[in-house]
Amino acid sequence: MRHHELFSRPHRRLNQLTGEWVLVSPHRTQRPWLGQVETLPPAELPAYDPNCYLCPGNTRANGAQNPAYTETFVFENDFAALLPDIPLERVSIRAPGVDGEIGPALLHAEAERGICRVVCFSPRHDLTLAQMSQADVRRVVEVWAEQYRELGEIDWVQSVLIFENRGAMMGASNPHPHGQIWANEQLPNEMRKELATQTAYWHEHNRCLLCDYLALELAAGERIVCANETWVALAPFWAVWPFETLVLPRSHTGALPDLDEAGREGLAAILRELTARYDRLFNVTFPYSMGFHQRPTDGLAHDGWHLHAHFYPPLLRSATVRKFMVGYEMLGQPQRDLTPEQAAERLREI
Amino acid sequence: MRHHELFSRPHRRLNQLTGEWVLVSPHRTQRPWLGQVETLPPAELPAYDPNCYLCPGNTRANGAQNPAYTETFVFENDFAALLPDIPLERVSIRAPGVDGEIGPALLHAEAERGICRVVCFSPRHDLTLAQMSQADVRRVVEVWAEQYRELGEIDWVQSVLIFENRGAMMGASNPHPHGQIWANEQLPNEMRKELATQTAYWHEHNRCLLCDYLALELAAGERIVCANETWVALAPFWAVWPFETLVLPRSHTGALPDLDEAGREGLAAILRELTARYDRLFNVTFPYSMGFHQRPTDGLAHDGWHLHAHFYPPLLRSATVRKFMVGYEMLGQPQRDLTPEQAAERLREI
Ligand SMILES: O=P(O)(O)O[C@H]1O[C@H](CO)[C@@H](O)[C@H](O)[C@H]1O
Ligand SMILES: O=P(O)(O)O[C@H]1O[C@H](CO)[C@@H](O)[C@H](O)[C@H]1O
Repeated sequence: MRHHELFSRPHRRLNQLTGEWVLVSPHRTQRPWLGQVETLPPAELPAYDPNCYLCPGNTRANGAQNPAYTETFVFENDFAALLPDIPLERVSIRAPGVDGEIGPALLHAEAERGICRVVCFSPRHDLTLAQMSQADVRRVVEVWAEQYRELGEIDWVQSVLIFENRGAMMGASNPHPHGQIWANEQLPNEMRKELATQTAYWHEHNRCLLCDYLALELAAGERIVCANETWVALAPFWAVWPFETLVLPRSHTGALPDLDEAGREGLAAILRELTARYDRLFNVTFPYSMGFHQRPTDGLAHDGWHLHAHFYPPLLRSATVRKFMVGYEMLGQPQRDLTPEQAAERLREI
Repeated sequence: MRHHELFSRPHRRLNQLTGEWVLVSPHRTQRPWLGQVETLPPAELPAYDPNCYLCPGNTRANGAQNPAYTETFVFENDFAALLPDIPLERVSIRAPGVDGEIGPALLHAEAERGICRVVCFSPRHDLTLAQMSQADVRRVVEVWAEQYRELGEIDWVQSVLIFENRGAMMGASNPHPHGQIWANEQLPNEMRKELATQTAYWHEHNRCLLCDYLALELAAGERIVCANETWVALAPFWAVWPFETLVLPRSHTGALPDLDEAGREGLAAILRELTARYDRLFNVTFPYSMGFHQRPTDGLAHDGWHLHAHFYPPLLRSATVRKFMVGYEMLGQPQRDLTPEQAAERLREI
């Protein structure tokens, strides 16, 4: 595959998980960059910051006080985008009628219940997943699994999205190591697309899409970034972001609570290894958004769903030059300037 | 409609053009912001910059010299993401077979031909669409219409996407007023979605989706930003970005060349008015990506297609605090912190 000439010229690739295309322009990496240069994150942070609203014992913006936690700490987001207790309501509005006929319903809105939580990964203000010990990250994995189980058991919750925005460039409002969980009444768009593709594949081939995909990638090798006994991190064939990766358990698993001991240890280990590789790429605490796509919690089996994490890091050429997903990308489709094979090679050889 | 309680609580709204949902959290505007603060664009620019690769007479990175143009100037992008002359090739790769069966085809890539052009709006380095005269913007409209016609006539071109990235925050590498055109062999994802929804509506109701939608908005009034005899700018009911707008011709028109004199004047006028309103909102040259969705140029009629422009500006609270579409938005679905009705009101009352 390494030998396809196609991959050295402009081409598009199909994302099997969303059914959408990405444009690849391998020859474009050489273009000069005079655009925005990002600020570097502070080189050193204190282990405790009295002004941080996530550090143990500190008071948050809404007056609540954090406990003197020593491992992890979960709380309800003080400025939650979603709320659990709102009236169920639905509104449809019709276009004005023409020629005496009633116009079609055009506007649709409905109440959306949800729960937003914050998960502090560590009491230490200055650490990242890459710098935390195996035992510490393993503890975060346990919290994530438990949160998915607990929130997923609420009868109206269909999706539990666990994610981390890392770095100011990715909208994180605080460098203290933390992630978020948004549990939703309705499946969000991205979950809906991935459910459709995985379910269709499951029914058509009697097999799992991501199990098959992982087998293909392990055989090909060129997009693998790192792997251990239970997990694999790779640059997906259809990656959008320059150094985007997909992190998969080797065995067919739908959600974090279904992982056994080895699977949990393996997840903690691969997260540490992958984020450490990212940090070494441009010698900076690598910004990213990452999150887990787990089996919907609507009570159905969804046997074809394969747990995975996406890492979407924005950096392109250096610690201060990012990829912008703007004009063409917003109005047309995502476009990337180096191939996933090149990205994987760089991350692998670090 | 102003009276729906629903719109003051978390809810989701359906985007009729893409079929996807957006989450609205009207109560979230009050959250404190300690995250990234953007740099302001330079307050004053020279009318001519000897180091600008778009100013008249200057030499570009690839050695080409710009003519001493006095109105507009179009040239092939020196670092084009798409190229017109590449071999047609297609690759599919199968998953490894299991139990002696051949695995399903999992990876799909195909060559993508295209043409990327740059359109300088003015010889002046220091102007924006908002600051250019009606005659000058009208000239840009003529160039856009002519480019769409010319590129659309190439037999393999299915989509001509005309767009502008304005401001360093939106990845523009140069403040000189300019836009881009990417013509594509295949319909990009967003065009494909909008074609599907508009075509379905056309067949189901024997009417145009956006004509009906515009009639609804003109009757409701609350999401209208500004309007003239031939064009209307409004905050769409399903807007994702804080001050996102949709700009529509009043009459059913598929593409820029189909506009008559009044329609072309009206477009130039509404672009000037809308961008001037944006600039006044936070008293800064407002960053945005904007672009036109025009009828596909695949030779089919596409009678249901209604020409429109999207404006996607990132600013949320001030000239230096933007909305980040990160974690939840990337992995789940877009989320916004003020309602489109509130955004329209602010832009309308400026
Ligand atoms: O071609 P430019 O202006 O250098 O580049 C800009 O617009 C392109 C099209 O939206 C994007 O792909 C780039 O990421 C962005 O920086
Ligand atoms: O909740 P935070 O960390 O303040 O906010 C961040 O993450 C959210 C979820 O991805 C986004 O909606 C915000 O735009 C971003 O700034």
